[in-house]
Amino acid sequence: LAVKFNRVCVAGVGLIGGSMALAMKRLKIAGRITGVGRGERNLKDALALGIIDGYTHNIEEGVVGADLVVLATPMRAMKELVRRCEGKFKKGAILTEVGSTKKKMIDEVLPLVGPGVDFIPTHPIAGKEKSGAIHSDPEIFKGRWCIIVPTKKSSKPGVEKIRRLWLALGSRVETMDPKDHDRVLAGISHLPHVVAYALVGALLEMDKKNPMLRFSAGGFRDFIRIAGSSSQMWRDICLENKQPIIDTIESYRKQLERIKIMIEKEQSEKLEQFFEECRGVKELVDKGHD
Amino acid sequence: LAVKFNRVCVAGVGLIGGSMALAMKRLKIAGRITGVGRGERNLKDALALGIIDGYTHNIEEGVVGADLVVLATPMRAMKELVRRCEGKFKKGAILTEVGSTKKKMIDEVLPLVGPGVDFIPTHPIAGKEKSGAIHSDPEIFKGRWCIIVPTKKSSKPGVEKIRRLWLALGSRVETMDPKDHDRVLAGISHLPHVVAYALVGALLEMDKKNPMLRFSAGGFRDFIRIAGSSSQMWRDICLENKQPIIDTIESYRKQLERIKIMIEKEQSEKLEQFFEECRGVKELVDKGHD
Repeated sequence: LAVKFNRVCVAGVGLIGGSMALAMKRLKIAGRITGVGRGERNLKDALALGIIDGYTHNIEEGVVGADLVVLATPMRAMKELVRRCEGKFKKGAILTEVGSTKKKMIDEVLPLVGPGVDFIPTHPIAGKEKSGAIHSDPEIFKGRWCIIVPTKKSSKPGVEKIRRLWLALGSRVETMDPKDHDRVLAGISHLPHVVAYALVGALLEMDKKNPMLRFSAGGFRDFIRIAGSSSQMWRDICLENKQPIIDTIESYRKQLERIKIMIEKEQSEKLEQFFEECRGVKELVDKGHD
Repeated sequence: LAVKFNRVCVAGVGLIGGSMALAMKRLKIAGRITGVGRGERNLKDALALGIIDGYTHNIEEGVVGADLVVLATPMRAMKELVRRCEGKFKKGAILTEVGSTKKKMIDEVLPLVGPGVDFIPTHPIAGKEKSGAIHSDPEIFKGRWCIIVPTKKSSKPGVEKIRRLWLALGSRVETMDPKDHDRVLAGISHLPHVVAYALVGALLEMDKKNPMLRFSAGGFRDFIRIAGSSSQMWRDICLENKQPIIDTIESYRKQLERIKIMIEKEQSEKLEQFFEECRGVKELVDKGHD
């Protein structure tokens, strides 16, 4: 199951890009790794930490000779980066990316992917609230899912190589089509964030009339942490995965309305039964993990 | 600031009752502590762990001679417990309780409180997802808020004694009237739980059509933990604090609708600004803590 890339280019050496680079180096999956980014400081940190072997601010330079190109930048930047690299990729290079949504990005990027480039989107469902190369952690993919989303421009051997890469990084790998990926992620990740942002927004409003935030405890503090993620990243996700997120908000509203009615009508048994069903979700989720 | 109760009766030796008892013993605030409960096993555990010095299944026996009676049972049981103790309390005894809601409970219990009993409701905003005497932890109140909700049957010296008790247990103490208490708690605690239950309910529904739960990661797992709390306790809270909770659900729905519209209309800047405002909540919350 060995997998090896002599030269790797990682564009966007943040938490995910940096962690991938570090893991590939430690496992000797990657030979030389070139980082690409805009911020000098972050790239210098990455170099000092041994995450990358060199860096450039120009993606066109970074991809030259690379066997594997990883786009780990904000979603919105990807299209432009691929456009700028037209004709610069090594023949047979694998181009992958690790964005949180797929359909819209693939629709936009696919026409820009030239012949001889193997384009294989992936989504490692991993992360922390922290960002930047200095928080890189080669272990963050262990035991987590990585979804591979093959396109019309993905070769079978390329997909297999990427699968082996993620298995080597410790992930559990599943293949999905873009729509399924986006629907699943809207449910398990995007909706929870929207729900947390709405709660924080509601409490900020209520606090204006009745100061209450300073008393907040356990439960609400988890929401604060969730809503403490990058504003730009979540703005992008909401816009990139618009319809599936709106659909999940609708499903969610129905459940909220259902609880509200049970409370209004004081349906004691129904409420308890519903809460009890919710407790059962833990088992279903644990099935997907160890 | 010393406070001392020679004989204490704790009805409901669960997480909160047990933790209070343990803390009061360690700090030598309580002399002899009698536990009251229905489950033999839990009371035996509490006795073996040195949380209580003896126990009974009859509250009428437990309160005899007690200088402090703590009701730490489910909210719904309190009224009946107080009724059963009519005429059994020691003259000048302090009767306190630690339930999560106040208005309805006080309205029901107050008429049953006889002369010579000092009735002083409190709400320590502390807890864990675990329950039962064996999870007792005398430190769980440290740095957390305890809200004292005086009634018409609370004496000033009694309120002062209870304030000192909670300060000794490490809490920060605030006094509120029942309505304010219930409104604040609906916001910072009850609404977050309702929101988490609704999310879990929505995902259970969506999972039937598109299996997705097994892929769930970070964000959603916090919700699972929140929705993993006791179903009976949360049913009781929803019914005891009905109107304030319904009001907060309404405020919440408006925020959710607001986000949905921003996504639908692709209001990129507004979305980012809103998410950024939400990130700011951390500071407001931290003001109330250290």
